[in-house]
Amino acid sequence: MTDDTLQLGNKTFTSRLLTGTGKFADNALISGMLEASGSQIITVALRRIDQQSKTDNILDSIPQNVTLLPNTSGARTAEQAVRIARIARAASGTNFIKIEVITDARYLMPDNQETLAATEILAKEGFIVLPYILPDLPLAKRLESAGAAAVMPLGAPIGTNRGLETKPLIAMLIENCRVPVIVDAGLGLPSHAAAAMEMGADAVLVNTAIATAGDPVTMGKAFELAVRAGRKAYLSGGGQCSDQAVASSPLTGFLN
Amino acid sequence: MTDDTLQLGNKTFTSRLLTGTGKFADNALISGMLEASGSQIITVALRRIDQQSKTDNILDSIPQNVTLLPNTSGARTAEQAVRIARIARAASGTNFIKIEVITDARYLMPDNQETLAATEILAKEGFIVLPYILPDLPLAKRLESAGAAAVMPLGAPIGTNRGLETKPLIAMLIENCRVPVIVDAGLGLPSHAAAAMEMGADAVLVNTAIATAGDPVTMGKAFELAVRAGRKAYLSGGGQCSDQAVASSPLTGFLN
Amino acid sequence: MTDDTLQLGNKTFTSRLLTGTGKFADNALISGMLEASGSQIITVALRRIDQQSKTDNILDSIPQNVTLLPNTSGARTAEQAVRIARIARAASGTNFIKIEVITDARYLMPDNQETLAATEILAKEGFIVLPYILPDLPLAKRLESAGAAAVMPLGAPIGTNRGLETKPLIAMLIENCRVPVIVDAGLGLPSHAAAAMEMGADAVLVNTAIATAGDPVTMGKAFELAVRAGRKAYLSGGGQCSDQAVASSPLTGFLN
Amino acid sequence: MTDDTLQLGNKTFTSRLLTGTGKFADNALISGMLEASGSQIITVALRRIDQQSKTDNILDSIPQNVTLLPNTSGARTAEQAVRIARIARAASGTNFIKIEVITDARYLMPDNQETLAATEILAKEGFIVLPYILPDLPLAKRLESAGAAAVMPLGAPIGTNRGLETKPLIAMLIENCRVPVIVDAGLGLPSHAAAAMEMGADAVLVNTAIATAGDPVTMGKAFELAVRAGRKAYLSGGGQCSDQAVASSPLTGFLN
Repeated sequence: MTDDTLQLGNKTFTSRLLTGTGKFADNALISGMLEASGSQIITVALRRIDQQSKTDNILDSIPQNVTLLPNTSGARTAEQAVRIARIARAASGTNFIKIEVITDARYLMPDNQETLAATEILAKEGFIVLPYILPDLPLAKRLESAGAAAVMPLGAPIGTNRGLETKPLIAMLIENCRVPVIVDAGLGLPSHAAAAMEMGADAVLVNTAIATAGDPVTMGKAFELAVRAGRKAYLSGGGQCSDQAVASSPLTGFLN
Repeated sequence: MTDDTLQLGNKTFTSRLLTGTGKFADNALISGMLEASGSQIITVALRRIDQQSKTDNILDSIPQNVTLLPNTSGARTAEQAVRIARIARAASGTNFIKIEVITDARYLMPDNQETLAATEILAKEGFIVLPYILPDLPLAKRLESAGAAAVMPLGAPIGTNRGLETKPLIAMLIENCRVPVIVDAGLGLPSHAAAAMEMGADAVLVNTAIATAGDPVTMGKAFELAVRAGRKAYLSGGGQCSDQAVASSPLTGFLN
Repeated sequence: MTDDTLQLGNKTFTSRLLTGTGKFADNALISGMLEASGSQIITVALRRIDQQSKTDNILDSIPQNVTLLPNTSGARTAEQAVRIARIARAASGTNFIKIEVITDARYLMPDNQETLAATEILAKEGFIVLPYILPDLPLAKRLESAGAAAVMPLGAPIGTNRGLETKPLIAMLIENCRVPVIVDAGLGLPSHAAAAMEMGADAVLVNTAIATAGDPVTMGKAFELAVRAGRKAYLSGGGQCSDQAVASSPLTGFLN
Repeated sequence: MTDDTLQLGNKTFTSRLLTGTGKFADNALISGMLEASGSQIITVALRRIDQQSKTDNILDSIPQNVTLLPNTSGARTAEQAVRIARIARAASGTNFIKIEVITDARYLMPDNQETLAATEILAKEGFIVLPYILPDLPLAKRLESAGAAAVMPLGAPIGTNRGLETKPLIAMLIENCRVPVIVDAGLGLPSHAAAAMEMGADAVLVNTAIATAGDPVTMGKAFELAVRAGRKAYLSGGGQCSDQAVASSPLTGFLN
């Protein structure tokens, strides 16, 4: 299993836990969280890259060996996402971009149609495009055809910590997509991340659950362990679920 | 967290993953599984201790530093469990005993009433008694009063791998019992074990899911990671589950 | 299906919805609820039978053709339950008694052991005993042997409206018990009651969900419909659940 | 509640249970099922309308007072769906059309993007358009703007009988859409239909679960009861779900 790596665009990663920069009570926690979690990719909103003051720059909290994944948070149309992506590339020097287009202010659900439109444009421009989506199989296949480097289906609405509510829909993507499937949003506990990996997801992105934990560094480590646990279980072939109880110890009468 | 240990009877453990010896395709896998899983306690049916041939003794697969937990598998009454426990102590030299009394041949559900009766007797005889039970709060409190060193509620019927089906009932035990709560039976995936630990269980016992995995050693490691993940999440204070989506990145119009 | 009746003791019922008298904002609602729900059995705490003032007697709200099911609410031991049952028989003139023994003040979980002890005594005294229990298969079989007229496993803790949390445990009782299985406590919505009936329960008891609804009479009717729906589905043989999508309309290319 | 009706296009319905014509072992069962279920709308694939032999015409099984809902089953593009819809209108004389565009042969998931394109065209041509979709909030709002008469989100993949797997996603549609929300596909038991209605769905469509039941007529009645149960519960205001047990009978010591 030494070669069990995650390939995104032209880069290879050994960690399958992506993290985020939002919601930390103190940005100084981010570097400790990154170290504890082993995360090699971290997402950051463009405005936080672009509009940093010289004295409080979030990029200072992110080590050089961690891949920056700018996102298009704030975009409400494909056109806005494309513009943000271009600015992000200029500002950060990376081709990686996570497409987030959100038109719904209440549930913050991704707008699949606008996301597809943005992906089609940006992939042609040489971006490594990771679109954040509602897990919709035909849409995921179109993203794949459009050149997306992965698909990022949500487990539950952003920030809810409710876990794998969309599990049956994500399972279809895992079974049918050639590009990596990265479960993003809604994972609130390490067990949720482990479950996503056990079902065959290639990676998970966790932000809120780590950033808002009582101890974000320890929680980052907890997710790191859980992602590895789930991946190992997937690779080693789990036992089957059974409707029938099966004794694990000999039950035939010992004393009779 | 260096002092986060599990106390059972007069012994202290740093691992919170108990394992079992049943169902391995080859007993030679057990020592590798123990090493990978870090498990410090392993349960074994008395008949396997007592009736080993000289050439294939299961105890040879278990390192000296791992605590043997004989169980009373095969007992159908309190009286039989007591007899098995006494023989096991004589044969193994340990005071530890896991009480299993099963009267139902189809679902292999523990018989709480007989288990309580056996616990009352054996605790007085100086055994470190770990009773396997259906999670029943008043019964668990009686076991505690009778001197049980822990309670071992089932997550789902033995060997089913169905996970934490009895979660709300186990939660009551965790909240109300002073002795450790060890979730035993039914945990089929690392995510199940992580979830048990996240809700505050003190430990888990996993046998079937590891023993019948395609690669039991790797699966043992997967459970080890998951148990630590769940424990760390419990200790670090998880984020709250929310009905409302909450943005993790700034959504206020970036470009407008 | 005209003969699809529920037999309890020496009585035969056409309705499979039992109701309760607790928690109504106004007892005057009870008779309307009974009519709407078609319920033929209603449970009432002894103190409400015994200690009624002459001007506000709960029995006045219950038509003669509805069977009164006194319960031993308030009992914390088998002995207390037995005493309450005897007083209830004297006061109400019915042999029916629902055994409730609750020792846990927080979760109000039934005490299975005390309940069994009370059942053994009361069944011998000619009572039609309906014990309220945590669904525990070996215990349910003992209650059956002791002469219980039915078993009443909880779906979830009293008053929580959380539904069939104990579904896998109840399924074991349904499969193995010869006496009727009546799901009692925790059913909060008609869909919960329907699900209990679909899995083969013989009846359900619903109190809180009806009594605390905005409109208890309409909610009583809703549960009546749901119980019949679930029973009919059980009798007519439901379709199987499938992992694979199966077209219900012809999908072969119409136009090609 | 005498005025609690469902409005679709220019028609008003008192039943909230839509049914289908697929998968019946014998088409002669359809009229009995319609009578038992009270269903006033039934969906039928165009090919079954158009290509009926003179001796076995499915329309003969459907009473005049039941509204025919032709569907575009077999369409793999918006263009095909539009063509089928036009033929269906000519053949059947009704403006009602259920849009089904399915590009995925394995899971039979609806293609939301093609479905939107077809809806935009057909609504302008005066059709009463009911699009079958994956519950995707931004897409549902676009369908509404395009003139859809309702949205028909799936509960689970067609024919699986797995129930309300997409419940959290459907809840968003119910909360945000002005047009009726009709849960279609995957509902396998009356309790699933009741649950959909309890959460505020305006109607459900059930085909497989009824058509493949051992007794489709009785199962049709079971769903009819369940839909009314769920609707009544929704209208009467259900009790709240609680984490804490709350006694329904007085627990304060009766005998003490």
